[in-house]
Amino acid sequence: MPGNTFGKIFRMTTWGESHGKGVGAVIDGCPPGLELTEEDIQFMLDKRRPGKSAASTGRKEPDMAKIMSGTFEGKTTGTPIMIMVKNKDARSDDYQKYSDIFRPGHGDITYHAKYGIRDWRGGGRASARETVGRVAAGAVAGKLLKVQNTVVTAYTIELGGIRAKERNLGIIGQNMFYCPDSHAAKKMEGRVIAVKKDGDSIGGIVEIMASGVPKGLGEPVFNKLDADLAAALMSIGAVKGVEIGSGFKAAGLKGSENNDSISEEGFDTNNAGGILAGISNGDRIIIRVAVKPIPSIRVEQNTIDTSGNKQTISVKGRHDVSAIPRINVVCEAMVNLVLTDHLLRQRAINLFDGMRIP
Amino acid sequence: MPGNTFGKIFRMTTWGESHGKGVGAVIDGCPPGLELTEEDIQFMLDKRRPGKSAASTGRKEPDMAKIMSGTFEGKTTGTPIMIMVKNKDARSDDYQKYSDIFRPGHGDITYHAKYGIRDWRGGGRASARETVGRVAAGAVAGKLLKVQNTVVTAYTIELGGIRAKERNLGIIGQNMFYCPDSHAAKKMEGRVIAVKKDGDSIGGIVEIMASGVPKGLGEPVFNKLDADLAAALMSIGAVKGVEIGSGFKAAGLKGSENNDSISEEGFDTNNAGGILAGISNGDRIIIRVAVKPIPSIRVEQNTIDTSGNKQTISVKGRHDVSAIPRINVVCEAMVNLVLTDHLLRQRAINLFDGMRIP
Amino acid sequence: MPGNTFGKIFRMTTWGESHGKGVGAVIDGCPPGLELTEEDIQFMLDKRRPGKSAASTGRKEPDMAKIMSGTFEGKTTGTPIMIMVKNKDARSDDYQKYSDIFRPGHGDITYHAKYGIRDWRGGGRASARETVGRVAAGAVAGKLLKVQNTVVTAYTIELGGIRAKERNLGIIGQNMFYCPDSHAAKKMEGRVIAVKKDGDSIGGIVEIMASGVPKGLGEPVFNKLDADLAAALMSIGAVKGVEIGSGFKAAGLKGSENNDSISEEGFDTNNAGGILAGISNGDRIIIRVAVKPIPSIRVEQNTIDTSGNKQTISVKGRHDVSAIPRINVVCEAMVNLVLTDHLLRQRAINLFDGMRIP
Amino acid sequence: MPGNTFGKIFRMTTWGESHGKGVGAVIDGCPPGLELTEEDIQFMLDKRRPGKSAASTGRKEPDMAKIMSGTFEGKTTGTPIMIMVKNKDARSDDYQKYSDIFRPGHGDITYHAKYGIRDWRGGGRASARETVGRVAAGAVAGKLLKVQNTVVTAYTIELGGIRAKERNLGIIGQNMFYCPDSHAAKKMEGRVIAVKKDGDSIGGIVEIMASGVPKGLGEPVFNKLDADLAAALMSIGAVKGVEIGSGFKAAGLKGSENNDSISEEGFDTNNAGGILAGISNGDRIIIRVAVKPIPSIRVEQNTIDTSGNKQTISVKGRHDVSAIPRINVVCEAMVNLVLTDHLLRQRAINLFDGMRIP
Repeated sequence: MPGNTFGKIFRMTTWGESHGKGVGAVIDGCPPGLELTEEDIQFMLDKRRPGKSAASTGRKEPDMAKIMSGTFEGKTTGTPIMIMVKNKDARSDDYQKYSDIFRPGHGDITYHAKYGIRDWRGGGRASARETVGRVAAGAVAGKLLKVQNTVVTAYTIELGGIRAKERNLGIIGQNMFYCPDSHAAKKMEGRVIAVKKDGDSIGGIVEIMASGVPKGLGEPVFNKLDADLAAALMSIGAVKGVEIGSGFKAAGLKGSENNDSISEEGFDTNNAGGILAGISNGDRIIIRVAVKPIPSIRVEQNTIDTSGNKQTISVKGRHDVSAIPRINVVCEAMVNLVLTDHLLRQRAINLFDGMRIP
Repeated sequence: MPGNTFGKIFRMTTWGESHGKGVGAVIDGCPPGLELTEEDIQFMLDKRRPGKSAASTGRKEPDMAKIMSGTFEGKTTGTPIMIMVKNKDARSDDYQKYSDIFRPGHGDITYHAKYGIRDWRGGGRASARETVGRVAAGAVAGKLLKVQNTVVTAYTIELGGIRAKERNLGIIGQNMFYCPDSHAAKKMEGRVIAVKKDGDSIGGIVEIMASGVPKGLGEPVFNKLDADLAAALMSIGAVKGVEIGSGFKAAGLKGSENNDSISEEGFDTNNAGGILAGISNGDRIIIRVAVKPIPSIRVEQNTIDTSGNKQTISVKGRHDVSAIPRINVVCEAMVNLVLTDHLLRQRAINLFDGMRIP
Repeated sequence: MPGNTFGKIFRMTTWGESHGKGVGAVIDGCPPGLELTEEDIQFMLDKRRPGKSAASTGRKEPDMAKIMSGTFEGKTTGTPIMIMVKNKDARSDDYQKYSDIFRPGHGDITYHAKYGIRDWRGGGRASARETVGRVAAGAVAGKLLKVQNTVVTAYTIELGGIRAKERNLGIIGQNMFYCPDSHAAKKMEGRVIAVKKDGDSIGGIVEIMASGVPKGLGEPVFNKLDADLAAALMSIGAVKGVEIGSGFKAAGLKGSENNDSISEEGFDTNNAGGILAGISNGDRIIIRVAVKPIPSIRVEQNTIDTSGNKQTISVKGRHDVSAIPRINVVCEAMVNLVLTDHLLRQRAINLFDGMRIP
Repeated sequence: MPGNTFGKIFRMTTWGESHGKGVGAVIDGCPPGLELTEEDIQFMLDKRRPGKSAASTGRKEPDMAKIMSGTFEGKTTGTPIMIMVKNKDARSDDYQKYSDIFRPGHGDITYHAKYGIRDWRGGGRASARETVGRVAAGAVAGKLLKVQNTVVTAYTIELGGIRAKERNLGIIGQNMFYCPDSHAAKKMEGRVIAVKKDGDSIGGIVEIMASGVPKGLGEPVFNKLDADLAAALMSIGAVKGVEIGSGFKAAGLKGSENNDSISEEGFDTNNAGGILAGISNGDRIIIRVAVKPIPSIRVEQNTIDTSGNKQTISVKGRHDVSAIPRINVVCEAMVNLVLTDHLLRQRAINLFDGMRIP
């Protein structure tokens, strides 16, 4: 069964390759009557646009979103919403030299093994450009969540080994890394410039916080909210780890330390990260993802070609030094999608509270 | 959409509560012609049986697996395989006192919020006993994987803060924690005994290794192999974090350090953990999960009752000190299920290699 | 992808073979708080019990339903409901002689081709006994529909060429064929007795009516209500045709005859059968299914054995003369399941009508 | 759960409205390495183009198919194939007058009830134009089937009460109705012209034959091949009935008449229509669908407006007199999609025949 659809009730199917004719998403299951314009989507797409931070590629992608179906007079109609972004500024020739060689850390070798054929231009389907469709769909989900006062924010808490010590979310728009610690943000900038000069790349950690999440979302036992969030985030190219609440730190704690005691006002701590037994508990949902360094580097590496012969490779071209900060809005989009889907799923079964159809 | 089914082509639906009439699973999509007996399943179930290590509850669960359908003369027929384990030795009265109070760290409060009704006996559906169905189904998946020489092994690399320094997998059957470091295992035992005396609990880290995984498994972009593995493992009650290969460590590395260079013999390192761009690369798959400390502790904690009034609670009864090592076989089962499902998924699309139907 | 699960939000997975240890179903997605007892299920199961009409086999199946999970203190909890019926009175030896021969009109030859192995005892999974799980799940769905005042009724309008001229639904409980025409019912009985004597079998037509269905159910374009109903009913063993409203008759009508004109009170006619563009229109839903004659007959037929050699066969044993009337309750169950599923699906997306979570 | 995706392994998601920016489909799960060009798709689209027969609207739709993703150097890559057809020649103003009135026999009233908002231009999503996406995806499926020598053909056997007495498939391309009886075709033409003059419309029956279908396709018990075919065909707008093989005629037959006896060469008759117990038996698959008359007619009808007030309506504009013959290629497409999906599904589980990955 193919893997390009995400969600059960609020569903997104993405399509498109880096250097093909375009990329996009079909959203199915969006409730009717939601106000939606191309500007809503453009606003989110602009956040993932390259060329905005020192860490990002110089490639210019105007990325103009077109809503091709599913709205009428500015509102969703309940039918599929197709959003398309045409590709421009693709320098496929730059990639010709990688058509028969496997770039280390990339999917070249596994796409080759799986499909026997691959579109090597710009990474094809494995390119980060595929996330355009995710962000577009996430923008729609975000609008729905706002109706419920649910807001999802992603911010950088580590980059190239530099950790944010503060969580001042009010300032994340004021630096290019969406970092909640202005001091750390400054040091991150220096690190990025140095690494860029070396032709190398760096990784980091993004934290995502969802506030205003209603209690009761998540479907035990296999679609627990944390399970679906983990899948959503791990499906992003550069992500190698996901943790909820105290996460890996919990492994070293005692039960008396890790349990969140409860008072009349709610939970006294939030080691659970807002999720208990796979169901949202009304507290903030806190997730962290480990982002690996971008594999495309100028530093020379050993590899093989498609015939199995030894080669060396130095990947030139316009590449980000880090997936951060462009990945942040993708994380927001994926969490938006999971929460929206579970919101609708919960509505379906919540039958005996006096609500009736129609 | 409900959440009790896992997998797409090789699918498992689990049912049952801790103190109900039984627990079990229906496996749908198992290829016909596989030799399968109740002993195959019992062997795996015995590995999760309590009362086998110092860390586990004294509760005796014979857990006799019955295959109710789907086999004929010792072989699978391609029809649904229902495996049932009847419940015994349930002391529901022990739980009566928790019927109207929320145990911290447990799903009591979220099940109450989500469903408005909950079976409080032994944790009901949120009990670890639900994993009996997973392990039974994982045993069937494991038999299929063996046909492909794929083997999954889970072992404890951290417990109560004590870390294994070695990865001597040959000895994991020789200590009660499935720990690949006999020295660490000894210290873990001491830690468990001490914590038990205090009426507290501890967490740890389990590593899972899959060897013999064919190249090409995983369905970009949302059912990447790592995404599905993350969901599978995060769906286990006590798990709060999942990482693949270098995982969170990758966040601090440079591209030149984290990329696995390639030679004629294969990958020179395995920071990828056997998965590139969501597709298995033929190398060993390496995953680590963070296991939180068991929330049921004798140590007194603050909480509220179902009427919202402040209460204190000390959870007595037969509880494990740690979900480790009983969780290990559950991890194996879930990874077995993901790999089997993706193996069959890949077969479906692999059309142009000369294979034909029938 | 395997085929033993039905429904999206209200889902049923059936398991079991005719002469195995039992048959049953797991229902996932049932809203919590519904009153449900074993008697509710038994009541429906008794309607499909053999030995109640002249047309049915003499086999005695007590078919005692056990709810193994998913309820607590007489109410559903939102967790999977497993319902099991143990098999009794199975005379597998009767079937030994059919273990290596293909009975005409049966699935013997196709199960053999598909799976390479088959449980030949009593037809195995292809037996009508598999419908026990459907009826049990349909009983649960029926209880939910009653909350919405939706009622589904199946009745026989043709049997062995004898057609009911009346639709007096008040009397369908008064004859053994659930026929709304007492005069026709009498003639049907005579026909059945005559055919039985010949060792032959007969088919017929069942009509299903759903009243009280809310407007707005059905998901264009592939899960239109009529599309899902057609699949549900065509999945029943003996069904070879399904039509909605005017059905095949519509092929011969003009638009001006077939269109249902609309007045302030509603539709003036019901050629649509209660469904327009795949969505319920508030009128009664009317469906008819063609039921083929039971393929197990004493009349001698030509066939081949598993080695491909020519054989003749006369199928003896306890077989119904017609799938009618036992199939009627199965039709009701399947329609119950479709309507319940779509009721919950519609709730999920019906977001902007002032309803909020929780 | 929304309804715009069809299939499990070979999946199609359609999008678009009649007078929106375009219509199309995303195909996910197409095996890699299949040769595919825009001409392959255009060829099928041209068959559903209006203005080709006396029965069809004069609207000119060039319907130029663009493959936006999923192919590389003329072959499929295993990634999603997005096919788009831009809308042209839309006279939305013609529909302004129907914006607040419900056309009898149309989905206007049910879309209004379900979604509370509808795109009334040209019928919006409920327009037959939605089938462009189906036909495009069906063209891809058809290319795959050809690899297995499976061919699907739809032809008209009844129109406006005139029945084809012959099944001369060799001539269906020689008349505008795809009718296998040239004499009947001639009479159909006369009927169409007469009905057109009256401003009325007519229905008919389409038969679909699939030859070269391998044995073993279909997934008991809910995704039997006939169940999935019934859903696929009933999901087409004008279809009100589906029957397989002897279909409704079987209701009047005896078992000894309806059973297909078996000889060394295969089945002696084909009342089963190529499917036994939901699994293909290697014989030709025969299906018939009842097509209702087009509801848009000039003849004046009673109806109400969106405020519930009585109105009369005469639907003018460019409308077909019958959905036949344009619906025929849509039927072919849907059957292509079902067979392809089941072909891939069967591959997945067919494990113990010596095939291995890779």
